[in-house]
Amino acid sequence: MLEELKKQVCDANRSLVDHGLVKFTWGNVSAIDRASGLVVIKPSGISFAEMKPEDMVVVDMDGQVVEGTLNPSSDTPTHLVLYRKFQKIGSIVHTHSTFATGWAQAGRDIPNIGTTHADSFYDDIPCTRDMRRNEVLGDYEMETGRVIVERFRNLDPLATPGVLVRNHGPFTWGETVDDAVENAVVLEEVAKIAFISTTIHLSSLDIVNHAPAMNRYLIDKHYNRKHGAGAYYGQKKHQ
Amino acid sequence: MLEELKKQVCDANRSLVDHGLVKFTWGNVSAIDRASGLVVIKPSGISFAEMKPEDMVVVDMDGQVVEGTLNPSSDTPTHLVLYRKFQKIGSIVHTHSTFATGWAQAGRDIPNIGTTHADSFYDDIPCTRDMRRNEVLGDYEMETGRVIVERFRNLDPLATPGVLVRNHGPFTWGETVDDAVENAVVLEEVAKIAFISTTIHLSSLDIVNHAPAMNRYLIDKHYNRKHGAGAYYGQKKHQ
Amino acid sequence: MLEELKKQVCDANRSLVDHGLVKFTWGNVSAIDRASGLVVIKPSGISFAEMKPEDMVVVDMDGQVVEGTLNPSSDTPTHLVLYRKFQKIGSIVHTHSTFATGWAQAGRDIPNIGTTHADSFYDDIPCTRDMRRNEVLGDYEMETGRVIVERFRNLDPLATPGVLVRNHGPFTWGETVDDAVENAVVLEEVAKIAFISTTIHLSSLDIVNHAPAMNRYLIDKHYNRKHGAGAYYGQKKHQ
Amino acid sequence: MLEELKKQVCDANRSLVDHGLVKFTWGNVSAIDRASGLVVIKPSGISFAEMKPEDMVVVDMDGQVVEGTLNPSSDTPTHLVLYRKFQKIGSIVHTHSTFATGWAQAGRDIPNIGTTHADSFYDDIPCTRDMRRNEVLGDYEMETGRVIVERFRNLDPLATPGVLVRNHGPFTWGETVDDAVENAVVLEEVAKIAFISTTIHLSSLDIVNHAPAMNRYLIDKHYNRKHGAGAYYGQKKHQ
Repeated sequence: MLEELKKQVCDANRSLVDHGLVKFTWGNVSAIDRASGLVVIKPSGISFAEMKPEDMVVVDMDGQVVEGTLNPSSDTPTHLVLYRKFQKIGSIVHTHSTFATGWAQAGRDIPNIGTTHADSFYDDIPCTRDMRRNEVLGDYEMETGRVIVERFRNLDPLATPGVLVRNHGPFTWGETVDDAVENAVVLEEVAKIAFISTTIHLSSLDIVNHAPAMNRYLIDKHYNRKHGAGAYYGQKKHQ
Repeated sequence: MLEELKKQVCDANRSLVDHGLVKFTWGNVSAIDRASGLVVIKPSGISFAEMKPEDMVVVDMDGQVVEGTLNPSSDTPTHLVLYRKFQKIGSIVHTHSTFATGWAQAGRDIPNIGTTHADSFYDDIPCTRDMRRNEVLGDYEMETGRVIVERFRNLDPLATPGVLVRNHGPFTWGETVDDAVENAVVLEEVAKIAFISTTIHLSSLDIVNHAPAMNRYLIDKHYNRKHGAGAYYGQKKHQ
Repeated sequence: MLEELKKQVCDANRSLVDHGLVKFTWGNVSAIDRASGLVVIKPSGISFAEMKPEDMVVVDMDGQVVEGTLNPSSDTPTHLVLYRKFQKIGSIVHTHSTFATGWAQAGRDIPNIGTTHADSFYDDIPCTRDMRRNEVLGDYEMETGRVIVERFRNLDPLATPGVLVRNHGPFTWGETVDDAVENAVVLEEVAKIAFISTTIHLSSLDIVNHAPAMNRYLIDKHYNRKHGAGAYYGQKKHQ
Repeated sequence: MLEELKKQVCDANRSLVDHGLVKFTWGNVSAIDRASGLVVIKPSGISFAEMKPEDMVVVDMDGQVVEGTLNPSSDTPTHLVLYRKFQKIGSIVHTHSTFATGWAQAGRDIPNIGTTHADSFYDDIPCTRDMRRNEVLGDYEMETGRVIVERFRNLDPLATPGVLVRNHGPFTWGETVDDAVENAVVLEEVAKIAFISTTIHLSSLDIVNHAPAMNRYLIDKHYNRKHGAGAYYGQKKHQ
């Protein structure tokens, strides 16, 4: 069943490797068939290289395996909570991509400080709160979904299609599998650029009152030996 | 019309991917034929991989499409302002390259602190001011061109062939398409090196009064086990 | 002898290059055959590209070469101490991987602040103490093993299968060769993410009281020109 | 003449691209034939991809071209000063590699804080002083060589085979072409690791008194769902 969706989900899982978002078996993609309420998801702990469409696991909204011989991703209950609460999304991607995970471990929202971010995510990419002891010791993966939903109380999940789970990593989603994967790529890039911006911002603060500099005559020399009237860098142009 | 220029612009757009400067459909290259006053530019939202020379759009200086079936880049009005005001430039490149965008999001000029920078850009690479509400809500892309031109009031656009649009990303230009692309590559590299330099500068300030160190005897040991009289690292030389 | 183990150790050494963990002849992998008490280890100072299984050196627990014509890795005595004291491990990997070595040079444990870390390492990845002058001038490589063991006095080496040798770099281990290599890859990734997290944390402190920002109307503009009712980025959808 | 040395120098120049140390025409390698006192060096402003051994330029110790139709590298006078003063070196490499140039632009020596550094460079990798106005406006490239030599007054150029020219970039050298290139690669890696170490050091200072952390129960949960008695991540082992 759902052969076309299985192929899409398998291809998307494998594309995470090409996009440099996952190592080993980390990360997973799922998609939902809203008509039947069935979810196709990556099997747990399987390497991306050897994954085939028929390995994808089909589960119902209670997490029961409907088709497939392998265990579904251990993060399946998180995906199911999101599909239930975010009715318009059709696919979810989870990775431990480097810079996004860096923000998640710092426990900070990624600030919306650039058009690259605003082109895809309307608000800051929010970071969830600390999970409580009983949430972690209880139905942990389902509770992970719940803290995400709690964080979106005043946010539109389609306008800001991603989240950082604190001390963990990013989840993104979208109406289609392609959208969810693109949002995972953009989130990682946006996380990297924001890391650079905030570090530059710090190194430019007033406490840094003598920034590195170069003498003007050295600038003149280098610019002019390449571009000035007596330029002598490179070969003669009429050669 | 302008088949040779279309090929150059198409090739240049595709080269942005090879140089690691763009993802998805981000970024665009254009070139102007000064004789006819016509501009060749990338179509909007088309992937670089599937782009062909005949997909390039030809527009006049009022932004009217003269040839081509696709929409021109949404940034076309920005390019047109620059071609009108910077009379000696022949090509423009816009990207969201990672480190340059990092500086743009921090709202800082990239300081000219190295010969790598001075070999290609005579002054600091300037960052534009915040755009005002009416500029953003009005003819936004044209106003983007205007704040760039405003920033160059006392700068020579050929000597410093690039700019950071605040909260957005870099534009570079040049007399030829090759120059404009090379300047985009150099600007990204210069942005990365300056990021490293300012971070090192910060970590070397007086507030950091006990830097990491290594014991001298450990240095001696390692240097000498490879290079000293009794070196025992590796295989015997006369083997 | 031990032909299968030699092949595994040789393949693992070569995989360090593919994983981007070593340059030139840096780093080494070994494995122990617990039944015979013999250790298979990389020869010293040999390039990974030209390495063959028959080049692997077999040594006994006293470091005497039992088979092989090349000198064993100069770090062999470190490996032997670890095999003697950590009875359940079967393989050891040593690299100078970039971010892990960055933490080792800073003399800091890598804090366990993310699930990526906790999935593979139960505790902070510990950094050893400064080695004393007599330890460095004495049987240096054996003493290196001893400071690692000293650091694990209250730690379980299988639950936290890696260490940073101060001013030097990481050692990881595992029950199998594959485990030890995987732990080397994970340690490097965890070191990189923790570097990002702690840098973000610093740039977000109270001393930084005016973070970079973007005007709300600029966010609205960019989000809506792609996703709003009057979106004009890209080609018409019904095209 | 010197055909074998030309081949070595040409190959070494091209290898700089493979090692990720240069872009466009930046950087150059030379070697000296001590018997004849002739130096083989890269031509100026030629792309590495199209370079052939016969393009290499042969100059004498006064910088006069003895063989070759192209202009020698504009940095030739710097190389000649080093060959004259550092009698035991046989080859020189100049690059603008990213992290080494970052340190040069910050005007800081790269501190010797790790065995990766000490394995190849005995002392801190020194950074030259600011060049004076008359040095820059005079015989600039020769004066660049002189400030390097001045910086090595109390240093052994074979034990510490590299330098950072302030606001510019690194020069490395060695007895052979292979040594000089290897030292360029190691210097860049050492510059990157030291960047990471000093940034970690800064973010770990006392002013940062509440580091990022993770709750212990979350650590337990993640470690144990993969490795504990009731592990449920992945597929059943006996499958």
